[in-house]
Amino acid sequence: MDLAFRMASRAIGTTANNPAVGCVIVKDNNIISRGWTQPSGRPHAEVHAINQIRDKTSLVGAEIYCSLEPCSHFGKTNPCVESIIKSGISKVYVASIDKNPLVNGKGIAKLKKLNIKVQMIFNRDIDELNNIFFNSKIKKRPLIISKIASTLDSKIATASSESKWITNSLSRSHGHYLRFKCDAMLVGKNTILLDNPDLRCRLNGLQLFSPNIFILDSNLEIPTKQKIFKSKKRQVYIFHRKNLDKKKLKKFNKFNVVLLPITLKDGVLDVNEAILSMAELGAQRVLVEGGAELLTQLINKKLVDILYWFRASKLIGKDGLNAVSNLSVSKMKSVKELKLISSMQIQTDTLEVYERK
Amino acid sequence: MDLAFRMASRAIGTTANNPAVGCVIVKDNNIISRGWTQPSGRPHAEVHAINQIRDKTSLVGAEIYCSLEPCSHFGKTNPCVESIIKSGISKVYVASIDKNPLVNGKGIAKLKKLNIKVQMIFNRDIDELNNIFFNSKIKKRPLIISKIASTLDSKIATASSESKWITNSLSRSHGHYLRFKCDAMLVGKNTILLDNPDLRCRLNGLQLFSPNIFILDSNLEIPTKQKIFKSKKRQVYIFHRKNLDKKKLKKFNKFNVVLLPITLKDGVLDVNEAILSMAELGAQRVLVEGGAELLTQLINKKLVDILYWFRASKLIGKDGLNAVSNLSVSKMKSVKELKLISSMQIQTDTLEVYERK
Repeated sequence: MDLAFRMASRAIGTTANNPAVGCVIVKDNNIISRGWTQPSGRPHAEVHAINQIRDKTSLVGAEIYCSLEPCSHFGKTNPCVESIIKSGISKVYVASIDKNPLVNGKGIAKLKKLNIKVQMIFNRDIDELNNIFFNSKIKKRPLIISKIASTLDSKIATASSESKWITNSLSRSHGHYLRFKCDAMLVGKNTILLDNPDLRCRLNGLQLFSPNIFILDSNLEIPTKQKIFKSKKRQVYIFHRKNLDKKKLKKFNKFNVVLLPITLKDGVLDVNEAILSMAELGAQRVLVEGGAELLTQLINKKLVDILYWFRASKLIGKDGLNAVSNLSVSKMKSVKELKLISSMQIQTDTLEVYERK
Repeated sequence: MDLAFRMASRAIGTTANNPAVGCVIVKDNNIISRGWTQPSGRPHAEVHAINQIRDKTSLVGAEIYCSLEPCSHFGKTNPCVESIIKSGISKVYVASIDKNPLVNGKGIAKLKKLNIKVQMIFNRDIDELNNIFFNSKIKKRPLIISKIASTLDSKIATASSESKWITNSLSRSHGHYLRFKCDAMLVGKNTILLDNPDLRCRLNGLQLFSPNIFILDSNLEIPTKQKIFKSKKRQVYIFHRKNLDKKKLKKFNKFNVVLLPITLKDGVLDVNEAILSMAELGAQRVLVEGGAELLTQLINKKLVDILYWFRASKLIGKDGLNAVSNLSVSKMKSVKELKLISSMQIQTDTLEVYERK
């Protein structure tokens, strides 16, 4: 089952609106195949594993380890239970029931009905992984991952807004890997306006896995000439305030952009509503790289689940741009606490990983 | 010789105006004694090691490993070469020539003259340790160690100046260990004025090893009621500007305080002159815990040799007090770089150690 988890890990961030699943087929104590959810979510892991076996007769009497209950409903693919039943596999090990109401035990019931043995095996890593998917489906709450790249004294740019490059190239590659492992990114308007990034994953061979982009821009002020609108391979969404002048909406007609009107709250777009909407659109893992204001808003609302802090051995001093903006902490007792998970050196930089406390 | 280094390490920060030296006596492949420079510098390591042997006849034909050339001059103690010669030790291994003009090869020459074999053995750690002593004697440049205790976002206090406690108790103990391992501390006026610290080492059993205190206070504004003046066990020095009103100097008469007039440069006390003066007064390892302005001044002048940065998993936000003040870095190319030496977790905190690059 540990291997099934590792297979599932390969799919993290690339499965669109589907869970990241891994499975392993075993016969006579030998692993005869492995599979994981393929890009965009099909085929599913079980079918991927079965497809890789040329001589299908070898599946008769085999056992399969699945990180998630095999699906029983017809979606973009035939249900996985059908494929398992047809194959002649005699026993299915399952790490977790699929809480999606369309499945939720029905897959296991169907297998048992046809005399295929089913055994549950708990695996902590798989449980955590699946919970991210369930949360995005049931609580409409994707996992929110933040990344900060700062100096030793926590500045993300000089007073003249220079930030290229604070961290070293290995840290930046790690940052691109985070993009690969997330299916969506959320950014503030100013990041697009001032930095004009394309927000792609630039790692060789993984460029196609660049996350979808969600931008918060209440008055639709971003010009369409920005790099972010050049890409056709992925979807760009812009949250803006309701009841905007129709002329303003028009300028995006020619672009691969979906406009999403949401509520203004205290003069800014309601980030809770934005996150709900992202989950509905299938986002499971959302990466927030900045700007500082958006990140600070998320920290204040306790919405940051994981924080990656890359830190270079450099100092900019007081007048640089702060990584974290105003948190209204005047007394030590109201300080915001996080939970330190790990710390490591990346050549001249350090990386610390924190979770919500 | 590695063991001699470890013996010498025990003495770091406690030897007053003397080098931290370690030695090991070996006979017939057995270690029969070990010694290190005793508090305040006497007895020296060699004598300490010899004194610990009850049956002095066992020293005849023994060999001694010394981290530094044994001294040949009469100071507060008899020269170590005399003790070695008397003891009957037949061979001396030395890691480093004592660059102090009073010794500088004379110790080795004397041993050789009396047919005691001398062999040099290079040891990197010892070399580094001795260089700190030589620099303080020859270049008048003590090792400057800085300590910062901040939040994740590099704030050392809230907007209302609260800072108790940002880091956890284990980190703070580590901070007190740094005080034990330094023979002097340099602080700005505001630290004494606002925080009123006693700057002692508070570790059990090590309280007597609290460092001497050097304060920068150009106009002698600190009131004598501050805690720092209560201690009789150690010396407090105050740097102030020259030609101050004599009345101002008077108020320290009753206290264990030495006043040191130095030059004003651009309106502030010349920190280079202060450091020179500290070296002349025997400071080998100087700890700077703050304030932010003093630390920033030292960083700007590239005077910080080692920086210990303790960081708690907490956030204060933009309006907190910055660990590092203005460095006049407006472009990335003028960023101040340090060299990352190590990083580790201290429960909920991290500690990163940097050196001058």
